[in-house]
Amino acid sequence: MAEVEAQNGVGGAENGSKVTPAVFAAVKPWLVVEAPKANDAVQFYKAAFGAEEVSRVNHPKRKADQELPLVLSAELKLGSSSIVVSDLTDDLSSPVKTAVTGSLFCLETEDVEAAVAKAVEAGAVSEGEIAEGEGACCGGRVGKVKDPYGNVWLICAPAKKCADVAA
Amino acid sequence: MAEVEAQNGVGGAENGSKVTPAVFAAVKPWLVVEAPKANDAVQFYKAAFGAEEVSRVNHPKRKADQELPLVLSAELKLGSSSIVVSDLTDDLSSPVKTAVTGSLFCLETEDVEAAVAKAVEAGAVSEGEIAEGEGACCGGRVGKVKDPYGNVWLICAPAKKCADVAA
Repeated sequence: MAEVEAQNGVGGAENGSKVTPAVFAAVKPWLVVEAPKANDAVQFYKAAFGAEEVSRVNHPKRKADQELPLVLSAELKLGSSSIVVSDLTDDLSSPVKTAVTGSLFCLETEDVEAAVAKAVEAGAVSEGEIAEGEGACCGGRVGKVKDPYGNVWLICAPAKKCADVAA
Repeated sequence: MAEVEAQNGVGGAENGSKVTPAVFAAVKPWLVVEAPKANDAVQFYKAAFGAEEVSRVNHPKRKADQELPLVLSAELKLGSSSIVVSDLTDDLSSPVKTAVTGSLFCLETEDVEAAVAKAVEAGAVSEGEIAEGEGACCGGRVGKVKDPYGNVWLICAPAKKCADVAA
């Protein structure tokens, strides 16, 4: 019953996998916003979260007589992470046409109150009180804001580890 | 802390900002899956993308007689990034009750073909051909897979920069 057909020379990986895992550098969340608001969203993430724009590619098929170029992708650096912001278009070649809006993100910071206040100042809506969180991401204090593009950002202070509790 | 008008939702970042920007460590995308599939999703991300589980917190209010504990948050390391996976519940205290499923992510790797093959082997569905991408994230070759939980992953090789083109 435990016999396997080893003589077939198939693969050889322990769990039957024939494919070597790839190595990934990082995950970049891709936020899709209703066109043509991607540029506004980029400005918002700069103002609210201090994101820095690293690069931008506009949509090549946008007609010249249209006022605003659509954003194919704008990459923003936010802490050690990157996010990508795009206008949602019905162009068949766009990689983002299947996406929905309304994603959820966790942002870690030592100063939850200031971060929530800054985001609200930039146009986000605070949802609920700042509270003690639960879970891997939000083990400490956590606030929640919704941005004008439908995304929810949990703003979390990391839980104090035993060694970190000084005073 | 400076007082801000939290209710009007109008950006005031450009002129008269009263709030110092907070410093963020990183962005963690939070993926919400239909309960109780979060554990399956964690296993999938391990198999498909080589993610490592860093920590997990189960739902504290889950009844003891129920078979599977619901996942409040499981944090996975994927390259230099982290993602958080949760079961979607109707618990009012859950931070993820407002989220939708079906987010979009970009994963950078040098070997797009192997990465797509590995993800498909683990249960993802490949969408379309591997193609030359456009945009800040996908300047090089790009494949696209949809995972069993409704999320779309663009698997991208970074575009060759002039200095990188050796042969």
